[in-house]
Amino acid sequence: MELLLLSNSTSDNGYLVHALDAIRELADGRTDALFVPFAGVTRDWDDYTAQVREALAPIGISVRGLHREADPRAAVASATLIVTGGGNTFRLLKCLREQGLLGPMAARLRAGGARYVGWSAGSVITSPTIRTTNDMPIVDPGGLDSLGLVPFQFNCHYFNLVVPGFRGETRDQRLAEFTVLSPEMPVLGLPEGDWVRVSGDRRTLHGEHAARWFLGDRTTDIAAGPLDVPQGDRAAR
Amino acid sequence: MELLLLSNSTSDNGYLVHALDAIRELADGRTDALFVPFAGVTRDWDDYTAQVREALAPIGISVRGLHREADPRAAVASATLIVTGGGNTFRLLKCLREQGLLGPMAARLRAGGARYVGWSAGSVITSPTIRTTNDMPIVDPGGLDSLGLVPFQFNCHYFNLVVPGFRGETRDQRLAEFTVLSPEMPVLGLPEGDWVRVSGDRRTLHGEHAARWFLGDRTTDIAAGPLDVPQGDRAAR
Repeated sequence: MELLLLSNSTSDNGYLVHALDAIRELADGRTDALFVPFAGVTRDWDDYTAQVREALAPIGISVRGLHREADPRAAVASATLIVTGGGNTFRLLKCLREQGLLGPMAARLRAGGARYVGWSAGSVITSPTIRTTNDMPIVDPGGLDSLGLVPFQFNCHYFNLVVPGFRGETRDQRLAEFTVLSPEMPVLGLPEGDWVRVSGDRRTLHGEHAARWFLGDRTTDIAAGPLDVPQGDRAAR
Repeated sequence: MELLLLSNSTSDNGYLVHALDAIRELADGRTDALFVPFAGVTRDWDDYTAQVREALAPIGISVRGLHREADPRAAVASATLIVTGGGNTFRLLKCLREQGLLGPMAARLRAGGARYVGWSAGSVITSPTIRTTNDMPIVDPGGLDSLGLVPFQFNCHYFNLVVPGFRGETRDQRLAEFTVLSPEMPVLGLPEGDWVRVSGDRRTLHGEHAARWFLGDRTTDIAAGPLDVPQGDRAAR
């Protein structure tokens, strides 16, 4: 299984520019990307696909939108490179579930038939569930279970700033709500600009900013390098 | 129907202090509050109930926790004052649904048998659905439909600051995702410290900060005073 899981798409240098080298390495010569635009809500899926097409052209990858495929399941089953963009995670999961694509996509990726690039919502759905997403439940996804390609939960766009005057929960407080109810499941807070590369059993954290593991009531900050998933211990709480 | 729907619980003056006068007015002599602590995740429900009990003691309201009632449905059916605290909206909705309390609570409040105070998650659940909540889907609530006591969606802790370095969606961008898919449903962005008082057909916005209506692709800022819910128009988009 070969996955490239980015926290986000945009940096000061432009759209996906910070990740182009990593995407090229992941693609390893594959030039035909099947793009999953379903997380896009406030923009047209054709426009979204065109934006990604333009972004990936400099590294020789062509992009076609899954929403334009006559047989989406067949398209997923034969894809060699699947790219899933960010937006709303609930919408993304709902579309994948309704079209019967969750199982086939997970199987194709697990078998190594296709490689995968995701960012934001596209990374979150590789977790067992979408229970650590930041966005609004604007649609009912018909269940929170997701692709389950990694044995932990992603929290993308991770930061824990306290906004002056804000009386709601901080990100860490929201994640603590998750870990109280799911003390056995690790959560990776992945800051802007960072990403995780999965290659078979090997996982590596990349990026300038320390990421943070949440497991039960423990947190651990980690720098770029080999990514060891902390083991849960129900007895710990 | 008599409802007091607060954006949040805490101000610089302490816990619920900013809302005590409004709670006293709403209670109108009722002194026996049934507290719904189900949104609490990171704190014990007994502790949460005790915190609210202490906060409401100065205005002569006693507080008992719904989680300690032998027959929760009977407790809701006979309550005269229901108070629902904030925390995680998904957890709150899941508990109410699993215990069969959503329908009885809505009926009791609509009939005027009980008055209602809510804050944060406790306000959000008076909307038709919880689709405009800010928190994480840490549990599956078994559907997003909610009490439906008001004809619009609450977005509590409303602000639209752009956090430096953050590449995720702003609050307005997330709400725009909702209004694109539900263009007929108004959303009220309720800032910290503000609240809505519902008395029969009359609704009033209170608080120092302008609130914001979102409907389709229109936004309207409104000051304290009579609250007119904007009418949706599917043809507008």
